[in-house]
Amino acid sequence: MDIKLRPIGLVHSPFKQKTDIQQEKYRGPEGFDSIQGELEIFPEFAPGLDSTEGFSHLIVLFAFHRSGEGKLSVLPPFETREKGVFATRSPHRPNPLGMTVLRLLKRQGRILEVAGVDMIEGTPILDIKPYTRRDRKPDARFGWLERTCR
Amino acid sequence: MDIKLRPIGLVHSPFKQKTDIQQEKYRGPEGFDSIQGELEIFPEFAPGLDSTEGFSHLIVLFAFHRSGEGKLSVLPPFETREKGVFATRSPHRPNPLGMTVLRLLKRQGRILEVAGVDMIEGTPILDIKPYTRRDRKPDARFGWLERTCR
Repeated sequence: MDIKLRPIGLVHSPFKQKTDIQQEKYRGPEGFDSIQGELEIFPEFAPGLDSTEGFSHLIVLFAFHRSGEGKLSVLPPFETREKGVFATRSPHRPNPLGMTVLRLLKRQGRILEVAGVDMIEGTPILDIKPYTRRDRKPDARFGWLERTCR
Repeated sequence: MDIKLRPIGLVHSPFKQKTDIQQEKYRGPEGFDSIQGELEIFPEFAPGLDSTEGFSHLIVLFAFHRSGEGKLSVLPPFETREKGVFATRSPHRPNPLGMTVLRLLKRQGRILEVAGVDMIEGTPILDIKPYTRRDRKPDARFGWLERTCR
């Protein structure tokens, strides 16, 4: 069974290519908090944005459209040992789907001004969901990421 | 541009159909916390699970395979006014993608025992990602959901 998706919009980002993102300065958990960009939703999907304004954070699902082939084992940036891809946020996944929680700064019609952008310019947006109480896990533990502070 | 995806596994859930999920008793933010199930990852993708064990929570991306056609405006359960679909977690989306954060109880090879299940039996899994510090937003506000306590 194949599942077919089509973009509902595009990310506008200060990052023009993949290598712009994987820099040491963005490594911490707040690394991208100050990076602003826009989510441009195509006109035909714009009515779906009604009532998003009240949310401080939105979950964005997007396509890793430049990631190339999927892998099952990846070497995360700044690491020395490979991990299973499902234990990482690597773009090289069996299904090239990305997920990021962005801060919503302002909605201007079908343009969402956001902060926390870690996608490159032109990234296809597949879905937007409100970030809800159920997505907060204050007691979470972070496996191999614990010692990296990411 | 179309994006094609293929399932990497299946959800095993006590919910056998959609109407099992939309019940008043599951309405609060902890509503599904006690609902246990399994993520069965297909053998060909199992090596991708290495190092997931240390994480307390996993993000699961899945297909709303029984949701029917997408809508731009939806009436959420227990609400009286429609909202834009991107301000809701409705299954009736332009791209039928779901996202849930599950608690990882135990990994048994290619089977992940999890809690927090709000998907139905047989739901196709598209991706698994670790829940990281960047996914926690302690200062979040929840728009129209604020007054519903969800």
